[in-house]
Amino acid sequence: MEKIAVGTNFFIPMPVVLVGTQVNGKDNFMTVGWCSRANANPPMIVCGIGDHHHTPRGITRAKTFSVNIPSSAMLEKTDYCGLVSGADVDKSKVFEVFYGALRTAPMIRDCPVALECRLVQAVGLPTNTLFIGEISGAYADPAVIKGGKPDFSAIDPLLLTMPDNTYWQLGKVAGKAWNAGLTFKKGTQEM
Amino acid sequence: MEKIAVGTNFFIPMPVVLVGTQVNGKDNFMTVGWCSRANANPPMIVCGIGDHHHTPRGITRAKTFSVNIPSSAMLEKTDYCGLVSGADVDKSKVFEVFYGALRTAPMIRDCPVALECRLVQAVGLPTNTLFIGEISGAYADPAVIKGGKPDFSAIDPLLLTMPDNTYWQLGKVAGKAWNAGLTFKKGTQEM
Repeated sequence: MEKIAVGTNFFIPMPVVLVGTQVNGKDNFMTVGWCSRANANPPMIVCGIGDHHHTPRGITRAKTFSVNIPSSAMLEKTDYCGLVSGADVDKSKVFEVFYGALRTAPMIRDCPVALECRLVQAVGLPTNTLFIGEISGAYADPAVIKGGKPDFSAIDPLLLTMPDNTYWQLGKVAGKAWNAGLTFKKGTQEM
Repeated sequence: MEKIAVGTNFFIPMPVVLVGTQVNGKDNFMTVGWCSRANANPPMIVCGIGDHHHTPRGITRAKTFSVNIPSSAMLEKTDYCGLVSGADVDKSKVFEVFYGALRTAPMIRDCPVALECRLVQAVGLPTNTLFIGEISGAYADPAVIKGGKPDFSAIDPLLLTMPDNTYWQLGKVAGKAWNAGLTFKKGTQEM
């Protein structure tokens, strides 16, 4: 297939999470799509957040934050937390909050999964900062844990694509990782 | 809902990309799930890659890499690139390759989207390195660009969840971002 050049401001598919912080003593939540695991052992997560946002002030001061995975049923409140800034609006009453061992990383009781993170490093980039946190606690609804493992059909997370600004649910299972390529691997070995 | 503590090695939903590098003069591709946008302007992307892999050698030497988005139709070859290491197996012939302006970031012609990146910074963590690259070129199949914008239904990307090791396609549209929360916002203003 021949390719055409498109704009470099390209967005790969994103998980949708709510980052929880305490800013000036108030719980605050921000919708974030630029979030990924960062380190295997100890488990770390990275969030790329624009420097103009309210959330970085909380992370920088408390050195903690939470990463909450909302289910698709929480779409309206999740999107709301990306529509308004904690600098203008008090978002501390949007969700019922609970705390883990870190005490300064508010987590959302209605989210099927909530991770509390201790800030390890902040990497300043031109317009954003990468906040790298070690996952020091992970909490889940018993209903989304099957046989000791998270069941992502039950978690029912949201994905985001841009610039069409569309939230998606998970769809069909396409295959199994570290497995779907075995037939192709066998073929290469027979060549 | 009451929460239970689960293992901290928790994996949020991941986009599936193929990271392209030149290692010792050979094109190599690795399946990566820990990838996210990192900076808004200029556009940057971050990939968290385990230090034991072959790919970091190529990125560190050439200071370039590519991020290719495979469609679900490419599942077998995509998974294969996560099953075998370029240290053991020559993956240069798995895909038809093309190059952009960077000359050392091999891109995959069959992928609907390919981004070439110039390494900006490498952040060493205990077991992984975050490779932060500026997207200096973006290439797409004309068939996945509608009205000048990427059409993610047409791109048909893969998502990955762990530890169930499941690849998923995008599913139902759940709503529109910066829009689905407007009704909730209106409600808060009337309180």
